Amino acid sequence: MRKRNLDTCLSPALFEPERHAGSIVVIIDILRATSAICTAFEHGASSIIPVADIPEARNYKERGFLVAAERDGFVLDFADFGNSPFNFTREKVAGKTIVYSTTNGTGIIRLASSAGKIVIGSFLNIGALTKWISDQKNDVVLFCAGWKNRFNLEDTICAGAIAEKLMSTSLYSTICDSTLAALDLWSLAKNDITGYIGKAAQRSRLRDKKLDDCIGFCLTADYTKKIPVIKDGVLVSL
Amino acid sequence: MRKRNLDTCLSPALFEPERHAGSIVVIIDILRATSAICTAFEHGASSIIPVADIPEARNYKERGFLVAAERDGFVLDFADFGNSPFNFTREKVAGKTIVYSTTNGTGIIRLASSAGKIVIGSFLNIGALTKWISDQKNDVVLFCAGWKNRFNLEDTICAGAIAEKLMSTSLYSTICDSTLAALDLWSLAKNDITGYIGKAAQRSRLRDKKLDDCIGFCLTADYTKKIPVIKDGVLVSL
Repeated sequence: MRKRNLDTCLSPALFEPERHAGSIVVIIDILRATSAICTAFEHGASSIIPVADIPEARNYKERGFLVAAERDGFVLDFADFGNSPFNFTREKVAGKTIVYSTTNGTGIIRLASSAGKIVIGSFLNIGALTKWISDQKNDVVLFCAGWKNRFNLEDTICAGAIAEKLMSTSLYSTICDSTLAALDLWSLAKNDITGYIGKAAQRSRLRDKKLDDCIGFCLTADYTKKIPVIKDGVLVSL
Repeated sequence: MRKRNLDTCLSPALFEPERHAGSIVVIIDILRATSAICTAFEHGASSIIPVADIPEARNYKERGFLVAAERDGFVLDFADFGNSPFNFTREKVAGKTIVYSTTNGTGIIRLASSAGKIVIGSFLNIGALTKWISDQKNDVVLFCAGWKNRFNLEDTICAGAIAEKLMSTSLYSTICDSTLAALDLWSLAKNDITGYIGKAAQRSRLRDKKLDDCIGFCLTADYTKKIPVIKDGVLVSL
């Protein structure tokens, strides 16, 4: 039986749409977008509309939607809240459609539009996600969002953690050096993820802005069984 | 005293010319281009002219130059030899100007043209190179050539080895996650580099084409003290 390919893309600048057509693309942006999205669905959100620009987010707000929007860590004045997972409480989001403004994330979803399926990955849903992926037949790409097109450590170790679980099923093989690197970095990080992440650039950025209170939470495995997936441009839970 | 920045670029697709203007850019493509270039200078080559396309290389050949040219591991019919370091023997190259055809390498040199200096790095010249770099004042970018814009393991661990030597001088600091990843991967590889490189995709590619005889040599530290540098578009030894 042919094994499925397991590739990893370490930054949006390295994504190859044609090569990955038909694959399951797992978007990983753990500090904090994909962790926040998983949390929102765990707390009962019905759907999340990703929008690219601020005027579009403002327009949704004027039409009565709940809007999560920030730039460089700061909540925009018209928004209901920013993108810390702690904002997406059950009280606020249960049963609601949330508009989520994220330049980075929206660009990535567009890049990955040739994919068979686009799903949202984080430590928070890693067990359910990898179980679901292995029940499909597709090749897989772990797509690290990085930061402004740069490589980052935190998304890479999460990709390594996901890769480790998938490779343990014996259904996958990889000849992708990025996957091998992610697995190796994860092997160094796994016994003390918080300590390892301490040196990452995004960790410093969030600390400087006092936005780092959610990091421990974002590194928690299996907080939820929800698997957010893009359907007609909107995020829903599988 | 301000410490100098040590950045790493894991693929040409991730290079940021404006950010790195004025830095020393170290090009790393150890299997096999930058190892071959270091070997050529050790064996007495006087200069190396990098050219992008095959017609240009052929034109140089017709004008009597020694030409090293291959595509995907195969020597072009008009060329004197391909790009295995073993081709660049003293008998062939001493005192000569060599024309070196490499699409990848030429593109990288163009990308890095905003740099303060562009130098060629490999394990073969790592000691002399890092000594020279630390005697300068510039920030440094370790620029991994990768493979067709993809991340690769072998250039990344060489970047990690160079980074380790530079960081040990206390002259440098890094907030670059790519540098931290390269250092960590090097820490896993350093006790058995050949074993570690065994899993890399380029290792398989070379093995499949029976071009892997030079890999052990390319992983040898300090075979030469030569530091190839780009001067007016041509490689010369410092």
